[in-house]
Amino acid sequence: MRVLAQRPHRILGIDPGSSVTGFGVVERCGGRVRHVAHGTLRAARGASLAERLASIQAGLVRAIAEHRPEVAVVERVFAGRSVRSALVLGHARGVALATAAAAGLTVCEYTAPEIKLAVTGAGAAEKRQVQAMVERLLSLDAAPALDAADALAAALCHAHRGPLAAFASARREPRSRRGGGRLVVRRAR
Amino acid sequence: MRVLAQRPHRILGIDPGSSVTGFGVVERCGGRVRHVAHGTLRAARGASLAERLASIQAGLVRAIAEHRPEVAVVERVFAGRSVRSALVLGHARGVALATAAAAGLTVCEYTAPEIKLAVTGAGAAEKRQVQAMVERLLSLDAAPALDAADALAAALCHAHRGPLAAFASARREPRSRRGGGRLVVRRAR
Repeated sequence: MRVLAQRPHRILGIDPGSSVTGFGVVERCGGRVRHVAHGTLRAARGASLAERLASIQAGLVRAIAEHRPEVAVVERVFAGRSVRSALVLGHARGVALATAAAAGLTVCEYTAPEIKLAVTGAGAAEKRQVQAMVERLLSLDAAPALDAADALAAALCHAHRGPLAAFASARREPRSRRGGGRLVVRRAR
Repeated sequence: MRVLAQRPHRILGIDPGSSVTGFGVVERCGGRVRHVAHGTLRAARGASLAERLASIQAGLVRAIAEHRPEVAVVERVFAGRSVRSALVLGHARGVALATAAAAGLTVCEYTAPEIKLAVTGAGAAEKRQVQAMVERLLSLDAAPALDAADALAAALCHAHRGPLAAFASARREPRSRRGGGRLVVRRAR
């Protein structure tokens, strides 16, 4: 059996929002996961929606250039909110997905319960529990801001699930695409 | 009194959609408006949402580089749809707004009734009426595809309303920003 993902593999988690977008980068090497970076992107006060979205795009382009992740993870969203909030969230989420794909990253999505379950062991965990577990799992000196914690949690979810998902994905790939050591995880949309 | 917008002024209308995004460019010089270009951006079949959004972004970047508009116009959307469709539309709309703002364009929004009224004289006009009037107003050889017609209609709406809006905007601008002949229209968000 081929051993997957032995080389360091960087994962960018993104928690998109039109006011604040959190991001977090973790690195998996073999069975170990370490923290690389995290932060929040905030638009200037008084900026228009278009300007705020452009600043999310610019911030993510910078983070990708700096940390060079191979995979981006964004929380999958379902129709459980109001129309108004879905529209607003959709704007920021669309920019995050487009920016990651345009930079050549493989984009993966997990539901909120999947992410919470992976990080806290409970699919209905509170935001503060997620934040505390992210701090502990990544041995951080301080709790990251909530948006950055959610982004790191998304990245951790993929880091923990990745090897099996990658193995399943590799088995489904055509033979000609199976040669490289690069991990390719593409979830059905 | 200063005469505004005597030099050619290009306006890009965008009708964002996750499957098909229409765009149209018109040029206003003094009181005359002429057609420059229009088209539709379609993602490859089987592409993921992130890839489709990245291809909208790339297509708009190309259109902006080719036609060099100063203003982008996108239909303003309210909470009148389902949560699911609002989320999907929000993704494409977010990419359009971010791409235009990142390219330095002034981004304007008009409601669907404002656009229909400007083009057909009726705020509740059908899509086919909008398409027919766009063809006629811009003296096109054939009817543009519906998505491109909606994009051209948005651009025409701004072209027809622009001079007054620009005058109002110029009066509100600080004195230091009023010098140039460049038309600056920024609608309240």
